[in-house]
Amino acid sequence: MIIVMKPNAPKDAVQKVTSLIEEKGLTAHLSEGREVTIIGVVGDKTKLEGDNLILLPYVDKLVPITESYKLSNKKFHPNPSRVTVGNHVIGPDTLTVMAGPCAVETEEQLLTIAREVKKAGAHFVRGGAYKPRTSPYSFQGLEVEGLRYMAEAKKETGLNTICEVIDEKSIEAAVKYVDMIQIGARNMQNFQLLREAGRSGLPVLLKRGLAATIDEWLNAAEYIIAEGNPNVVLCERGIRTYETSTRNTLDLSAVPVIRAKSHLPIIVDPSHATGVRAYVEPLAKAAVACGADGLMIEVHNDPEHALSDGPQSLTFSQFEDVMAHLRPYIQLAERKL
Amino acid sequence: MIIVMKPNAPKDAVQKVTSLIEEKGLTAHLSEGREVTIIGVVGDKTKLEGDNLILLPYVDKLVPITESYKLSNKKFHPNPSRVTVGNHVIGPDTLTVMAGPCAVETEEQLLTIAREVKKAGAHFVRGGAYKPRTSPYSFQGLEVEGLRYMAEAKKETGLNTICEVIDEKSIEAAVKYVDMIQIGARNMQNFQLLREAGRSGLPVLLKRGLAATIDEWLNAAEYIIAEGNPNVVLCERGIRTYETSTRNTLDLSAVPVIRAKSHLPIIVDPSHATGVRAYVEPLAKAAVACGADGLMIEVHNDPEHALSDGPQSLTFSQFEDVMAHLRPYIQLAERKL
Amino acid sequence: MIIVMKPNAPKDAVQKVTSLIEEKGLTAHLSEGREVTIIGVVGDKTKLEGDNLILLPYVDKLVPITESYKLSNKKFHPNPSRVTVGNHVIGPDTLTVMAGPCAVETEEQLLTIAREVKKAGAHFVRGGAYKPRTSPYSFQGLEVEGLRYMAEAKKETGLNTICEVIDEKSIEAAVKYVDMIQIGARNMQNFQLLREAGRSGLPVLLKRGLAATIDEWLNAAEYIIAEGNPNVVLCERGIRTYETSTRNTLDLSAVPVIRAKSHLPIIVDPSHATGVRAYVEPLAKAAVACGADGLMIEVHNDPEHALSDGPQSLTFSQFEDVMAHLRPYIQLAERKL
Amino acid sequence: MIIVMKPNAPKDAVQKVTSLIEEKGLTAHLSEGREVTIIGVVGDKTKLEGDNLILLPYVDKLVPITESYKLSNKKFHPNPSRVTVGNHVIGPDTLTVMAGPCAVETEEQLLTIAREVKKAGAHFVRGGAYKPRTSPYSFQGLEVEGLRYMAEAKKETGLNTICEVIDEKSIEAAVKYVDMIQIGARNMQNFQLLREAGRSGLPVLLKRGLAATIDEWLNAAEYIIAEGNPNVVLCERGIRTYETSTRNTLDLSAVPVIRAKSHLPIIVDPSHATGVRAYVEPLAKAAVACGADGLMIEVHNDPEHALSDGPQSLTFSQFEDVMAHLRPYIQLAERKL
Repeated sequence: MIIVMKPNAPKDAVQKVTSLIEEKGLTAHLSEGREVTIIGVVGDKTKLEGDNLILLPYVDKLVPITESYKLSNKKFHPNPSRVTVGNHVIGPDTLTVMAGPCAVETEEQLLTIAREVKKAGAHFVRGGAYKPRTSPYSFQGLEVEGLRYMAEAKKETGLNTICEVIDEKSIEAAVKYVDMIQIGARNMQNFQLLREAGRSGLPVLLKRGLAATIDEWLNAAEYIIAEGNPNVVLCERGIRTYETSTRNTLDLSAVPVIRAKSHLPIIVDPSHATGVRAYVEPLAKAAVACGADGLMIEVHNDPEHALSDGPQSLTFSQFEDVMAHLRPYIQLAERKL
Repeated sequence: MIIVMKPNAPKDAVQKVTSLIEEKGLTAHLSEGREVTIIGVVGDKTKLEGDNLILLPYVDKLVPITESYKLSNKKFHPNPSRVTVGNHVIGPDTLTVMAGPCAVETEEQLLTIAREVKKAGAHFVRGGAYKPRTSPYSFQGLEVEGLRYMAEAKKETGLNTICEVIDEKSIEAAVKYVDMIQIGARNMQNFQLLREAGRSGLPVLLKRGLAATIDEWLNAAEYIIAEGNPNVVLCERGIRTYETSTRNTLDLSAVPVIRAKSHLPIIVDPSHATGVRAYVEPLAKAAVACGADGLMIEVHNDPEHALSDGPQSLTFSQFEDVMAHLRPYIQLAERKL
Repeated sequence: MIIVMKPNAPKDAVQKVTSLIEEKGLTAHLSEGREVTIIGVVGDKTKLEGDNLILLPYVDKLVPITESYKLSNKKFHPNPSRVTVGNHVIGPDTLTVMAGPCAVETEEQLLTIAREVKKAGAHFVRGGAYKPRTSPYSFQGLEVEGLRYMAEAKKETGLNTICEVIDEKSIEAAVKYVDMIQIGARNMQNFQLLREAGRSGLPVLLKRGLAATIDEWLNAAEYIIAEGNPNVVLCERGIRTYETSTRNTLDLSAVPVIRAKSHLPIIVDPSHATGVRAYVEPLAKAAVACGADGLMIEVHNDPEHALSDGPQSLTFSQFEDVMAHLRPYIQLAERKL
Repeated sequence: MIIVMKPNAPKDAVQKVTSLIEEKGLTAHLSEGREVTIIGVVGDKTKLEGDNLILLPYVDKLVPITESYKLSNKKFHPNPSRVTVGNHVIGPDTLTVMAGPCAVETEEQLLTIAREVKKAGAHFVRGGAYKPRTSPYSFQGLEVEGLRYMAEAKKETGLNTICEVIDEKSIEAAVKYVDMIQIGARNMQNFQLLREAGRSGLPVLLKRGLAATIDEWLNAAEYIIAEGNPNVVLCERGIRTYETSTRNTLDLSAVPVIRAKSHLPIIVDPSHATGVRAYVEPLAKAAVACGADGLMIEVHNDPEHALSDGPQSLTFSQFEDVMAHLRPYIQLAERKL
């Protein structure tokens, strides 16, 4: 951490700061500039309580130098991680495709969709059994019943399965039925849930919060990994901005930024990001082109009658087309589907 | 809901939409414009599944007309609500003040703070026993131990008590020890938590999410009220914007906007909004001046050594000053302290 | 436009609105719903003054139905436009590449860069002669001298040239020396400048404003086209969000959104969007993959000593690599370089 | 400036950075931390070209320490500035009120409004003669004719006058007719206009850009002052965020933040910020309560027929009421009206 003093801070004030630093067993390095004095703090900064130094007289600002996340930080784990789910490995060699309905509606619906997305090349069937919805009057999911259908879908198609979890109870149920769990955008900083996901032993897909910075996102991943679970995959799904032509603003820069800051795999969800079916294919291609490790795409047997997120869902034949059009981009990216 | 057709939509396409509306037992009203045809849907729109109509051929856009929240909506409850907590009523007649440390640290600390904030005029002592923190390596709270200190503080000072809850377990514990529970900004769309808060029977302070729209906020309140608990108080605490001079951007317009849209009381937290001690007083005055029903202010016995959020905490004498300076504004607002 | 009345609006209030509409020679269509009455306005809505109807008693909200831009609107010009600059056509068949330094520094510098970017495949050399800078103490550009170097560069290499203009005087100068002018992000709503750019007769590259919605952007294009100049190319260059890992957040969804709403070509500037050299290549690939008509990339002979925007500038060999890596993506997009 | 090296940067890399700093006649202070080495740069940092040091091997990040604005910076001008316009002084002793229509429409309209706002206590009549409008098809202002009416209004009422300028020509005209000029939000980074405003000799009201940070705003003020014109007044008028209940989000924290960073007066415009008439009074009170030096409020003789911004304009009797309700707040703030 660097402490910047106000212009004309008297020697006493600087002395008070350096004493406090040294009391804690840390070292203070002074640079006296033309306008201001800055103090570099060397040592284990967790010994300093939070940001309270800002309250000392004549302290102007504090500048953090090192990130608070370690386990998800590339600086300490330079090589890209691979996350194994069943017989599939999410990571730099593969372009992982997760596809399926926003919400699981019936067993037949899910099985039909699972068969079709498998045929088109997907590795995972996704489907929400617990649906966090803005309004309490919207469809909230089939819960355990939905999870059972997921297990059926796996049994029949051999696809891996992934489901969103929303609390301890849903994690307990998910562990019995699915291969991977998902933490949704609205729960990205539900720290209890992150810890429980960490303890579940299952691989975790961690969606970026609606207004989460990349540093907060990696700190959220840290919560999961700190529980002994290194199998975290990030998912960029759009952030909230002032622009309203799309549901959210897909931040594809997040892909190279995460690559620079973390070893964790990152996939992209163009369906939730845009909320518009016609924008899914161009942004899926863009995601592959900029280095994403995978895609999550909503597919529905009958989007016009979907109970949730119909407008952004692809039909079977649209999904088949998208996958066909993606193939050359996946090849260019030197990944296998 | 209004359905806007694309220019030159053929009669067939319009017919298909109106048929679908009428099949559901709703009525379709056509306006054929110079450029476009619009269709007004009259009846119980919950019979239409989500936004899927957008997928029909030649449909250009859907415009929702009515809000999805009813119980928190002023249209159906024109008079301002009053929320009673112990012997105190939060609502239009009072300027409710909640004050205390970000985190409960020790029993003595909390008791000292409770005594001091009472002396200065506060109605509630606040204090976090469960702390959601961005990094897993930050102090996370004393949990039940902290709640017990809150009960002690109440016993000694007679102040009402309020604590943040973060999951089912913490709600169960809070019910035994405190008078009011708080849902934090990061959990505003943790819908399970909202439901459980609703079922707890305790009055609930619902902080606005970091990137929540006012409509999403009122929908979150709806989750609590829909469980049979009408005792919801909203708390504006700053939203995330591009500006970095303050931790968040305090959206004081939210006060008159909520007044126009809802009957629920709304208080303002200038401490979390700005993250800077010197900005607390001017924004507290502004909050009272624009009609807020109360304030939540962080006060600490020793901010320089606080385990959380020291930079924004007031000392006892600063809090006393702020309260003294606020009194004439509270009088002008025709409220009693 | 649709007018939504408040619940329980009396017949009188509805009558007052419809009378006012009919007075103006427009037609009002009523839909009386269970909760609210809505009124569709049919006819030339420019006859209604702005949004003042909201002030009439019991009017709840106004919902615009048609866009205010016409000349840049795909609804009235369904086929993609082509913008010819010298012997080059910007549009759906080509992937146009504009490359060069942020600021023109010396004649030799610009000539060297022009030769190198031409060799690597660029169609335009870009270079700022007038530099809008946040601080008045930063380098502000060589002005006319810089434009002369651009003309030299064209003469020697045959490349087309493009320069930012910032006021009437710079447009007058630019007309003499360069092939295309650019309106920068900060001037996107400098309406005088837009009109003058329209009257200049030169093709115009219109960068998206830092916080401009897509509709505002197309309205800005409308200002130029309304002056009789249809040769407008849009340039997405990142928008301002809360995320600070990149200088701006590149909104690649803007590419398919513009494709859906407008006939104008759109190119992407990954250099200004990210501000980080390492992110230019992945986002350039993504831009091509999602359908952009071109790229603007900063290239500098000696980025470490650049007078402006060094951190995001590519060296010659880096640019050559990027172009080589882009070629297969351009082929996939069925465009020629 | 502080330079943070990457972990494990070799001595060579650190040496290269310090040499470069010393070559420029600056001093480098090293702090070798447990994880990283940081280098403080002492001396005139304008000798370093921009941010290019980031391109040196093993440099991780650059942290600016001092602000780039000097003339508008409180650090170098600790006392609050007073800006004199005619017989009125904008500054800490007064609560300056500027009121009038968004756009000047007719002479009679402006004179009527001027008389009425004067009666209610305003010091300035405002009115747009040049209107920057999103769509080229909206009313664009009366231009010089409108300025003449302003001069008439001054002659008759003795009020000071203020008008927005949009280019060199409008500044030349404004100098002849009005007392103060305004730079609008969309032109806050139109640096040519800022310079010309600086040279005009007239006091300047500088509105904050829609997405401008406070530092960018103070840098914009710097452009004006650097031309020898210290008479700059800032105006907060709402920033662009994701929230759509109000036209913009009024950032009242900007008032105490500006007070902490600058000596310039700051006024608040609740009319443009909210776009809703009913929100003007509560936010005007809040602005006074948090320390603003003045208010700009839109008032219209007939808002229902206003050519621009009717929905946010107050009628005469509403403005009279607002002023009456503001008086006790102005007294509390120890200012005179």
